[in-house]
Amino acid sequence: MDAPHLRVAVVGAGNVGRALVQMLHDSERQIALDDAATATLEVVGVAVRDLSVVRPGVPAALLTDDPLGLVTREDVDIVVEVMGGVDLARQVAEATLARGASLVTANKALMAACGTELARRADERGADLMYEASVGGAIPIIRALRTSLAGERISRVIGIVNGTTNYVLTEMTQRGLDYESALAEAQVLGYAEADPRADVEGFDAAAKVQILASLAIGTALAGEEISREGISGLRSVDVDFARRAGYVIKALGVVERVGEHGLSRRTHPALVPLDHPLASVHGAMNAVFVEGDKSGPLMWLGRGAGGEATATAVLGDLLHAARNRIAGRHDQPFTVDDRLFAVDEGEVSSVFYISLDVVDEPGVLAQVAGVFGRHDVSIQSMEQSGFAHEARLSFVSHHARTRDVEATLADLNRLSAVERVGACIRVVDGGSR
Amino acid sequence: MDAPHLRVAVVGAGNVGRALVQMLHDSERQIALDDAATATLEVVGVAVRDLSVVRPGVPAALLTDDPLGLVTREDVDIVVEVMGGVDLARQVAEATLARGASLVTANKALMAACGTELARRADERGADLMYEASVGGAIPIIRALRTSLAGERISRVIGIVNGTTNYVLTEMTQRGLDYESALAEAQVLGYAEADPRADVEGFDAAAKVQILASLAIGTALAGEEISREGISGLRSVDVDFARRAGYVIKALGVVERVGEHGLSRRTHPALVPLDHPLASVHGAMNAVFVEGDKSGPLMWLGRGAGGEATATAVLGDLLHAARNRIAGRHDQPFTVDDRLFAVDEGEVSSVFYISLDVVDEPGVLAQVAGVFGRHDVSIQSMEQSGFAHEARLSFVSHHARTRDVEATLADLNRLSAVERVGACIRVVDGGSR
Repeated sequence: MDAPHLRVAVVGAGNVGRALVQMLHDSERQIALDDAATATLEVVGVAVRDLSVVRPGVPAALLTDDPLGLVTREDVDIVVEVMGGVDLARQVAEATLARGASLVTANKALMAACGTELARRADERGADLMYEASVGGAIPIIRALRTSLAGERISRVIGIVNGTTNYVLTEMTQRGLDYESALAEAQVLGYAEADPRADVEGFDAAAKVQILASLAIGTALAGEEISREGISGLRSVDVDFARRAGYVIKALGVVERVGEHGLSRRTHPALVPLDHPLASVHGAMNAVFVEGDKSGPLMWLGRGAGGEATATAVLGDLLHAARNRIAGRHDQPFTVDDRLFAVDEGEVSSVFYISLDVVDEPGVLAQVAGVFGRHDVSIQSMEQSGFAHEARLSFVSHHARTRDVEATLADLNRLSAVERVGACIRVVDGGSR
Repeated sequence: MDAPHLRVAVVGAGNVGRALVQMLHDSERQIALDDAATATLEVVGVAVRDLSVVRPGVPAALLTDDPLGLVTREDVDIVVEVMGGVDLARQVAEATLARGASLVTANKALMAACGTELARRADERGADLMYEASVGGAIPIIRALRTSLAGERISRVIGIVNGTTNYVLTEMTQRGLDYESALAEAQVLGYAEADPRADVEGFDAAAKVQILASLAIGTALAGEEISREGISGLRSVDVDFARRAGYVIKALGVVERVGEHGLSRRTHPALVPLDHPLASVHGAMNAVFVEGDKSGPLMWLGRGAGGEATATAVLGDLLHAARNRIAGRHDQPFTVDDRLFAVDEGEVSSVFYISLDVVDEPGVLAQVAGVFGRHDVSIQSMEQSGFAHEARLSFVSHHARTRDVEATLADLNRLSAVERVGACIRVVDGGSR
């Protein structure tokens, strides 16, 4: 019996697109791929912006600069979108799904902007929408949330989902670099963009938080605002304090259930206890830590970026979409739970690390402690270190409402003895045994 | 439209079976479960060995002591086998699949003994055979290997897949207990059996290694011998040396490609570098570390045991089997690669840690070093520590063949200055960045 045959269009030939095409054309993998796809897969075209650029590993005859023309070809069964961006990618996605072809995308921005709508359209047309590579690069977290954990009630997801910020923080921690030097090094090595804001201000992580929230808890994907704090204000002294106190600072994306139907979605740096599995996620690695009511803690770790690593996630989706197509079925879209609401982030409580630069004179600590007390922020530990006429006070609070901590900081800034608030960073509670 | 209805038989009502039945009967989960299963699921019976035992959470009307009668009922669509053991479980599995019902099992011993044969029968009858809970408890590693990584070439799998040994080793490391005390404590706390041999001698891990090898690389599952070393010979001095040298000792299950089609499958303790993700897997947690050619390193972490945690993995399988049944399909069985062969473990090379108790007199080190040299085992680091008239020599080798290291030890034992070989433990190479 001849194996069935499926035609694949690839939109985008950057690192991920090229690595994917090379894997699909690798003769040593052919039998395993056909077997996993239950079909032979033929790449019928690769859409690029500029035909004059040389694309190693991609046969020139496959190249086209007309992505919409490619994905609306009648013989295309599955479209792989790996070009990024939202506007053109959305047109590609809509044209693909309108024809009833399946879509595999690595595009977090697209999914965050209109994922729910695309999922609905795919389902209506009996097509698949898969996006494993949109969060965590090679890490197969999306499928796990869609399938293995489908019956589980997930209370919290904490992700190290941005390799750039994790690289910068790892260098600050392990080599004692300051933020600017670590970022400059990351830029030289290609881990950070020339304009690093999407990474260091948490926009990239926020898109991934939206996707994780939709799958783990059931929120709609529609470009809502995520509470965002970047890492650009972090100082070496805070990294040092963290280490001495048994923590490491990581940039996190967090999805957290608050009460029955409330939801907090946010990105921020945090102190992670050294015995927490996330603490040992170094450099450009990514990880997603999930807490389920019955499963307990689960963590996935792997490369968050890189053409080949990301392409393996795209390939996994492509093979699954191929199997589905041959079997005449498609995966269920994720379920949106209409009862969920975004909580006021000011109401969410956390443990906080707060450091203050103060004038070193009698009575200052009493004044500062008084301000904490007036706002019901209680302290679990304090460290004082002196430098000439200044001192630094470092506090770790008990659980406190974000709103109360913000009010505390505002009042502390009004004290004449407080030179400045150096840091206010959340602390992740609990290691895991 | 009425949702379709599926009937589920549960065989075994220990911690896992009871937790599963409770989750299926939890009214707060009902909508999510029906949604994920695309059907309503009805537990029609729970088979137990002894009807007189009270089973909290399991309605007495569902209990039966006739497992084969239950699973051969004509109206049963899916059987969940969570009783363990091989003989009766195999009869249950065969009777289930013979009827074309799907089987979900948590039984590593059953899968290691006859998994390939059961998978073949399931496929012939258009039924599913799922066994997520057989390795790593709550960790969804089986589905990831079957689907997300289906297109990837995996070169090595290293698992901390036995919670008992990991608990014992964690206590030895963190609290300085010796092996006997740590094991006794684990027994008191219920982490170890009264007869601990299945865990501490590596039999449990070996069954899981077989399952991982079948999915990651494509070996048949048929009860073959796995090279096994337990942890019962470990001494506190070796745990201490490991920590000083930047390692932690973990009990591992390893599947490793050697050349194109050779395969090493083994369980043994090993020194894991502190910056390796496996080093921070503490207590009764499990983890599976996978190295793919293109994906790079990936790790999954979670609870390896416990009724509720394990039941979440069973539930994920059950929901997936239900969806398949409603869609009129079943998952592909894993592919067996007939070209694979088990390598001679003596030919496999590793880095080794070796410690010797020697008489403290001039010339001993030269004699010892000469023995290493004669067997082509070269040394990358050495530490000497003295106690009265004895000294301990601790070596870390470069990569060396297992056979050569064994020959070295045999010759060292013949030296009159060598009181005894204290330890010979493999070292996992490379941290991950």
